[in-house]
This record gives sequence, C-alpha cells and structure tokens, in this order.
Amino acid sequence: METWDALSARRNVRQYRPDPIAERDLDRIVEAGWRAPSASNRQHRDFVVVTDRDQLRKLSTVWRGAQHIAGAAAAIALVVPDSDDEHTRLVDQFDLGQATFAILLAAADLGIGTGHSSVGEQDNARAILGVPPGHTVSYLIGVGYPADRPLRPTAKPDRRPFEEVVHRGHWRSS
Amino acid sequence: METWDALSARRNVRQYRPDPIAERDLDRIVEAGWRAPSASNRQHRDFVVVTDRDQLRKLSTVWRGAQHIAGAAAAIALVVPDSDDEHTRLVDQFDLGQATFAILLAAADLGIGTGHSSVGEQDNARAILGVPPGHTVSYLIGVGYPADRPLRPTAKPDRRPFEEVVHRGHWRSS
Repeated sequence: METWDALSARRNVRQYRPDPIAERDLDRIVEAGWRAPSASNRQHRDFVVVTDRDQLRKLSTVWRGAQHIAGAAAAIALVVPDSDDEHTRLVDQFDLGQATFAILLAAADLGIGTGHSSVGEQDNARAILGVPPGHTVSYLIGVGYPADRPLRPTAKPDRRPFEEVVHRGHWRSS
Repeated sequence: METWDALSARRNVRQYRPDPIAERDLDRIVEAGWRAPSASNRQHRDFVVVTDRDQLRKLSTVWRGAQHIAGAAAAIALVVPDSDDEHTRLVDQFDLGQATFAILLAAADLGIGTGHSSVGEQDNARAILGVPPGHTVSYLIGVGYPADRPLRPTAKPDRRPFEEVVHRGHWRSS
C-alpha cells in the first residue's frame, strides 16, 4: 500500500475477525517497531508477541480497556526497563510511542487493524508474559483483521481543526 | 512510495540540502502528525512549523543537539500543555512519540529527511516561537532533503538483534 494510504487508513480497531495473522506478516509488523528510532539509539524496549488464545484472554483482564485483546488474533506487549529518573521515564515513553506508531502503520499497510490498551494490573501482566522484575509492561496492542469493515483512507478523522493545531512560524492565539 | 519502503528508508538526517520543501509537502508531513492517535483522542499537542532562516538559526541554540536545525529547510516544534500529574506527562510523551513517528514517516515517503532534537532552554524556545506559558516545547524536528545521499531502504539498521528484542509468547531470558 502507498504510505499515505496507510497513514490515512489507520484507525483504532477493537473488534476482530477470527482469522489468524500470517507469521510473516506478524514478524513484519514487529520489525517496524524494532526499526523505530530512540534517544541516542538506546532502544529501551522489548516486544512480547502473543498468539495463544488462553494467554490473550488472560491479558484482556489486566485493564478495563484491554477487553478487546481477548478476541484479537495477536497482541504485542511493549515492555520497558524501570528507571528511577523521571526524565528517562518520559523519554522512554516518547520512544515507545514512536515504536508503537511504526507497528500500527505496518499493520495498516497489510490491511490489519490495531488497538492499544494501557496496563493496570502490572504484576498480573508480568506473570502472564513471564516478564522479570525491573521491567514494566507499558502497553498492549491488539492485532487482527477488522470485524466491521476493511481499512480505507478517511478524509476527515475526528481531530481538532488542522488550522488550530498547526501554527505557522509563531503560535497563533485561538 | 510503498509503506514498507518508507519504514525501512527512514533514518536520522542532520545535514540538509539548501532546497526548500514545497508548502504542500510540508503540510502533508504535519498532517500525518495531526492524524496520529492519542489517549482518549485528547490530542495534547500543537505543532509550530518554522521555515524562516533567522528563526531556524535561533532555534538551533536551544539545545546542544539542535545545531542541525540551523541548516534545515524547516523545523516542526512539538508543543504539549503542562501538567502537574506524572501519569498525564508520561502518556502525553507516548502520544507525542506516536505523532512524531507519523511525521518522520510521511517525510521519508517524500524522500525528505528528518532529525529530532530535545529542547534545553525552554524559555528561549518559547520566546522564539511565541508559545505562551503553560506549554512546553518538547521536541524540534529538523526537516530537509538529505545532503549526503537519498533515502533508500536499509536491510540492517543499527539495532539490538531482532531475536533478542522480540519474545514469542513468553519473555526469553538472554
């Protein structure tokens, strides 16, 4: 798919068809996250890819916004090392956001939908995935073919007006 | 360009040809950031697009890692509202990372290079851009055609080994 089509077709998908994702496609989606840049290329991130239905069901209980994971073809858990320093935590989250968007876009390019979830019950999430202490499971991304309708470019996403968000040269008071 | 080509051709570009970026292209690059998702669609972000050479030179002084901005065809400043709550700050940085990667990728799709910078001198950055109190200029993204060589897909980016970063089902001890 053309890049702009993928950028404008990506949307939040939380209901999935039961079809599995081909392993090659899932690897490519995660590879996009692996390729994403990070501050000083420090790569404070690991990805755990889950396709087992029982494990997906368990993961769906770690946050009220994770219920869609139960019906996803796969989930990608984003794991960061803990840090005592707030600046490190902030930059790590920025970098995790970069990797996440790369994942969402690589999926959209293949016609595959994605939906984020935070993680509330951290101990539970770590236990389900076998993640050792000293790491946080920051987000889960549900992955699957959309149940409702295929991904298609949308002209008008639900966003604040473009000319309000984008300032030219200097901040424009609204 | 095909999405996967853009994903694998994107790289950190800090030296730029003097050629300007067409306004249409610059708008499309920022539009990608505007389209990016955010927690509960709250969109805690504004973008200030700078193309004035004098302003770019001034911006290049706000951090030791911002020197490349002086020679960029344009810069996009990412602005977030301040918050007293650390969780809000962390999620806002994650969302800013998502918008940033969308910007980097839309640029790569057009053969245009990008390079991030943090912002050290916050008061200075705000003054140069006219950003009001209560907001932080989190990052600058330099934008321009690469001076060294065109963007081309790379097979082996400089990253930790894929099989070390990507875990299957459960965390694998390394």
